Amino acid sequence: VNAVELIERKRDGGRLSDAEIAWLIDGYVADRVADYQMAAMAMTIYLHGLDDAELAAWTGAMLHSGEVFDLSEIDRPKIDKHSTGGVGDKVSIPLAPMVAACGVAVPMMSGRGLGHTGGTLDKLESIPGMEVRLDGSQISTVIKKCGFVMAGQTDNLVPADRKLYALRDATGTVPSIPLIASSIMSKKLAEDLDGLVLDVKVGSGAFMTDLAHARLLASTMVGIGANHGVPVVALLTAMDQPLGNTVGNSLEIAESVELLRGSGPPDLLEVTLELGSRMLALAGIENGTETLQRVVADGRAFELLLKMVELQGGDPGVLADPSLLPTAPQTMEVTATHTGFVGRCDAKAIGVAAMRLGAGRELKEDKIDHAVGITLLAKVGDPVEAGQPLARIHYRDTVDPAAVESAFSVSESPVPSHQIILEEIR
Amino acid sequence: VNAVELIERKRDGGRLSDAEIAWLIDGYVADRVADYQMAAMAMTIYLHGLDDAELAAWTGAMLHSGEVFDLSEIDRPKIDKHSTGGVGDKVSIPLAPMVAACGVAVPMMSGRGLGHTGGTLDKLESIPGMEVRLDGSQISTVIKKCGFVMAGQTDNLVPADRKLYALRDATGTVPSIPLIASSIMSKKLAEDLDGLVLDVKVGSGAFMTDLAHARLLASTMVGIGANHGVPVVALLTAMDQPLGNTVGNSLEIAESVELLRGSGPPDLLEVTLELGSRMLALAGIENGTETLQRVVADGRAFELLLKMVELQGGDPGVLADPSLLPTAPQTMEVTATHTGFVGRCDAKAIGVAAMRLGAGRELKEDKIDHAVGITLLAKVGDPVEAGQPLARIHYRDTVDPAAVESAFSVSESPVPSHQIILEEIR
Repeated sequence: VNAVELIERKRDGGRLSDAEIAWLIDGYVADRVADYQMAAMAMTIYLHGLDDAELAAWTGAMLHSGEVFDLSEIDRPKIDKHSTGGVGDKVSIPLAPMVAACGVAVPMMSGRGLGHTGGTLDKLESIPGMEVRLDGSQISTVIKKCGFVMAGQTDNLVPADRKLYALRDATGTVPSIPLIASSIMSKKLAEDLDGLVLDVKVGSGAFMTDLAHARLLASTMVGIGANHGVPVVALLTAMDQPLGNTVGNSLEIAESVELLRGSGPPDLLEVTLELGSRMLALAGIENGTETLQRVVADGRAFELLLKMVELQGGDPGVLADPSLLPTAPQTMEVTATHTGFVGRCDAKAIGVAAMRLGAGRELKEDKIDHAVGITLLAKVGDPVEAGQPLARIHYRDTVDPAAVESAFSVSESPVPSHQIILEEIR
Repeated sequence: VNAVELIERKRDGGRLSDAEIAWLIDGYVADRVADYQMAAMAMTIYLHGLDDAELAAWTGAMLHSGEVFDLSEIDRPKIDKHSTGGVGDKVSIPLAPMVAACGVAVPMMSGRGLGHTGGTLDKLESIPGMEVRLDGSQISTVIKKCGFVMAGQTDNLVPADRKLYALRDATGTVPSIPLIASSIMSKKLAEDLDGLVLDVKVGSGAFMTDLAHARLLASTMVGIGANHGVPVVALLTAMDQPLGNTVGNSLEIAESVELLRGSGPPDLLEVTLELGSRMLALAGIENGTETLQRVVADGRAFELLLKMVELQGGDPGVLADPSLLPTAPQTMEVTATHTGFVGRCDAKAIGVAAMRLGAGRELKEDKIDHAVGITLLAKVGDPVEAGQPLARIHYRDTVDPAAVESAFSVSESPVPSHQIILEEIR
């Protein structure tokens, strides 16, 4: 086998065997296959795709490029949730302790924000002392003690993906469905899961802006799971407007606490319950919605969140009293210019505005300001009067209210509120 | 501008501006654009192509990546010939002095052999002392003294092509018509030519095995010439069997001398005269065929070859008496197994057999044995009797006659001889 022969075959529309794919990925990690060869290969995959068997082999080779968790000591079913990323998407934070409180182990490996989308790890780091960089044995210990963990991927988990992702980022080969699907699934399969629920976001604030591509990505990932013997369920959920009423790290932690205390915005609750009940179903637990509502009502889910935060070095006091979380020094409100109904509250525009405030990163190396962000005071379908506040901007030094204003439009006629759960793919 | 944006545009079927192409090629030579980015770009070009304007800009950017000859001191028209390469193709060696003897300057920059195809520089180095690595001023001096030169490209000529060719070789992006055409044309345009004749070989022993691809490559190169103000004429010529009766370096020099002394095989003479008369026509000289035959008949062309060899440090004595050229210690003949007509004398098979004898290179770093090779004693259409020799193998230590035998097939019914000049594209 040599790399050129494999590139030529894919270039000409042919296919690679399992052994050839394993050779390629292993060689890439070991620097026997050069970056420029993998770049040419990634472009052939971008343009010609991978078939189901190639994709399963590609994902498997990525998965086995590094450490694979062994959670066999944990006798609960192990179920994770993965979101393709959106604006205001803090679902993981209330969801993981809720599902754990129902008796399921949740090894929730999360990521950081980039561009207009936020990241769970950044949000958690709003909590003073919170440590999200754990090694394999710490992860296992935290799961054993409180049923779930929220941490970043360890350095040894799927090193091929880290290398390949950086290369794709520099070679115009990021938005390829097989490469995205294998990147996500290789990391999830390395967690030693019994089941996985995917939240594939669709809309202006999502990576996939149209339903057809989102559906294809979802079914591709479900197929990879099936090929690897892991049941996967995907929900396509709307990301035209931000999820919940807050965008920004501390603000989203506070909103997550609200949800766990039995209040919180209805769209956030709906997505959390829909994803959670599917996680429970994969663990063999029926009537998931009621079970989840019960562990919120009796405070057990919130208690688990406090326990996890404490186990990971964080100060649970700021969750008991979210006013102690980092707070922006200044706020200002953006108001409706006329009376009517909110017709648009654009997720991407709000996400970009929050990023510019410092809540997110324009470049990977940028620092996050946990205190700043945006609170939405009206969402799509809500009636508003001229002069009524639409959003509150939490800022440090400077603010550009026009960026937030332009995310909204107000219509004279009533606007139906958006459907949020669009489709289920299994 | 950034490289990722340009890759994405080509990936999605868009086009690049002249300035963007210049930025990309300059950046690649200056290491501001990474190898892996150029590899991804080359694959998008392989799969989506370049339009005429992009191709002209790409070729121009390559051309200007290094030194461009200034031959303005030479007051003769400057015309070169380029062949896409074949087996037994020694045309350049008799052609250049013939055309120079007619009053045209021929700055013939040649290459080396790889795989089953030979290279003019390797053939010339059969002549003891012959130096083909000349710098720009030596090239100019030799042209001034004898009207032509035969040398390798200088290190400063089109450095972008050297870098890009090595990358394409390692990334499965060699056989792309726009990339081949711009590679050839950038080097030829850097020679400060008034006209160029292309010999695009078609058939088993050629880079292009079918007429449609050869025609497309030829018309692409003619188009690049037009866009750069240089008239280009292309002949498509057959390369199903070797050209002439010899394959191997010393053997081909001896056959070239034969041609310049008024004999030599008819197919080699035909291709030489057809290419030469078109070179003369580009220089404004009519009745090219007769003019070329006259400079052979009166010995002026051969005299110029002797002069050029002497100017470049070679021993002209071995041309006056080719039996002094390096000679293989052993020979053996391959014979016809039955009576009939030669139906096939496969160029690629003969080229590979000669390479294995040591006449060519399997890898770029391999050394050449100038003495070894194959003399063809029968060609397509010739009647042969059982036991009659088909070819003579000139070898050093070991020989595999089956490799040569299998290149031939003998048919019971008469076989028409092949047409050699297939098409003209201008």
